[in-house]
Amino acid sequence: MSTEKCFAKGSAAPGPVPKGSIRLFNMRFCPFAQRTKLVLNAKGIKHETININLKDKPDWFLEKNPLGLVPTLETPAGEVIYESPITCDYLDEVYPEKKLLPSSPLGKAQQKMMLEHFSKVIPFLFKIPAGRNNGEDVSGLEAELKEKFTKFNKDLVERKTKFFGGDSVTMIDYMMWPFFERLEIFQLQHCLDDAPELKKWTECMSEDAAVRATRHSVDTYKGFYKTYMEGNPNYDYGL
Amino acid sequence: MSTEKCFAKGSAAPGPVPKGSIRLFNMRFCPFAQRTKLVLNAKGIKHETININLKDKPDWFLEKNPLGLVPTLETPAGEVIYESPITCDYLDEVYPEKKLLPSSPLGKAQQKMMLEHFSKVIPFLFKIPAGRNNGEDVSGLEAELKEKFTKFNKDLVERKTKFFGGDSVTMIDYMMWPFFERLEIFQLQHCLDDAPELKKWTECMSEDAAVRATRHSVDTYKGFYKTYMEGNPNYDYGL
Repeated sequence: MSTEKCFAKGSAAPGPVPKGSIRLFNMRFCPFAQRTKLVLNAKGIKHETININLKDKPDWFLEKNPLGLVPTLETPAGEVIYESPITCDYLDEVYPEKKLLPSSPLGKAQQKMMLEHFSKVIPFLFKIPAGRNNGEDVSGLEAELKEKFTKFNKDLVERKTKFFGGDSVTMIDYMMWPFFERLEIFQLQHCLDDAPELKKWTECMSEDAAVRATRHSVDTYKGFYKTYMEGNPNYDYGL
Repeated sequence: MSTEKCFAKGSAAPGPVPKGSIRLFNMRFCPFAQRTKLVLNAKGIKHETININLKDKPDWFLEKNPLGLVPTLETPAGEVIYESPITCDYLDEVYPEKKLLPSSPLGKAQQKMMLEHFSKVIPFLFKIPAGRNNGEDVSGLEAELKEKFTKFNKDLVERKTKFFGGDSVTMIDYMMWPFFERLEIFQLQHCLDDAPELKKWTECMSEDAAVRATRHSVDTYKGFYKTYMEGNPNYDYGL
């Protein structure tokens, strides 16, 4: 868990990344950056974390990644890698310890296809809280989300495995997890009611060591998302 | 080039894929499916092509891929792979001849990041013709597209290479090409006017053997897109 306050515009740029380490540009509450943190933790990769103020980004950060997005990785050679699945695949290839992606081309393709399906779930997790915040009727969106969850539930039932890539946690589980971790904060846990296997998966995932190492308390999440919904995110909330 | 008429609802399902071959479910004019055709051709992979009527899909196709999208690959073992970049990576991993992706994790990550940037270009190639068709002013969209092309141009200038992955064609070139092939048909070639290196790239690409093998004549494209814009695509146009 990173405990450093975020860097904003005007802050001094960090020096080069020390040899034998890798740097993660992060935002403590970003579910996409959490994917990379999960992989770094699961694989035991030595790394440092620099938290970025996403509302007031340092110029030196925009020079490294003109898109200004987290997660971004920086290597000791100054190479820059971004987009969460790309950073995670990169880490899994470069650090051979505890491979998270299957070695077979078909296994990899299947995880990528699942991720593609899951990417269609993500917008709901932003649209529903935002809609509620605006006093809109979100019951239709909630029904759609439930429907999508039952498909993932069916997938687990058919696989007969505890996790989406087998009986141990693999890459696809870490790619999906950060969004499930936020269901309670977004008051969306009831959307799992018709998806018992998927619910069981969330329970197994919460026991995972990397998940425990990257998680905030529900109170901290709630505190941050309150400031976020008010349009003035406090990226250092809870520090 | 596939010359078979498309399969529609009610058609007989094809049998299993013969050993030593792989099957591509295709639509002759789909730029995404063309990515997979380019890779199949470039790598000299023995394959058969089944064209699908996307407006009236066979039930047996929807059983294989519930999303009903092309490209979809099917193996002799009945395994199904879809989403164009996933199919292309799969083919490059399974068939070792003429590797199209770099072997280094960083090289792969860089191609994936470029593809991510390029994916933001694609919507313009659909929005501009559709907007024109509705009599809308598309000059703003054209200006945005030009701006995006100048960034790709700058990238080639900085790399000092003929292609996006070096001095020979690699995966990223094939991922981008099908959309450039259609610029003339969409009357968007002037958007390359401020991007001379990118224009040169399109000229080099048109000489590539896989590009030549998967291309239709401008007249055939125009004929198809006319029926497409009229809302009644003739997938067998030109056969």
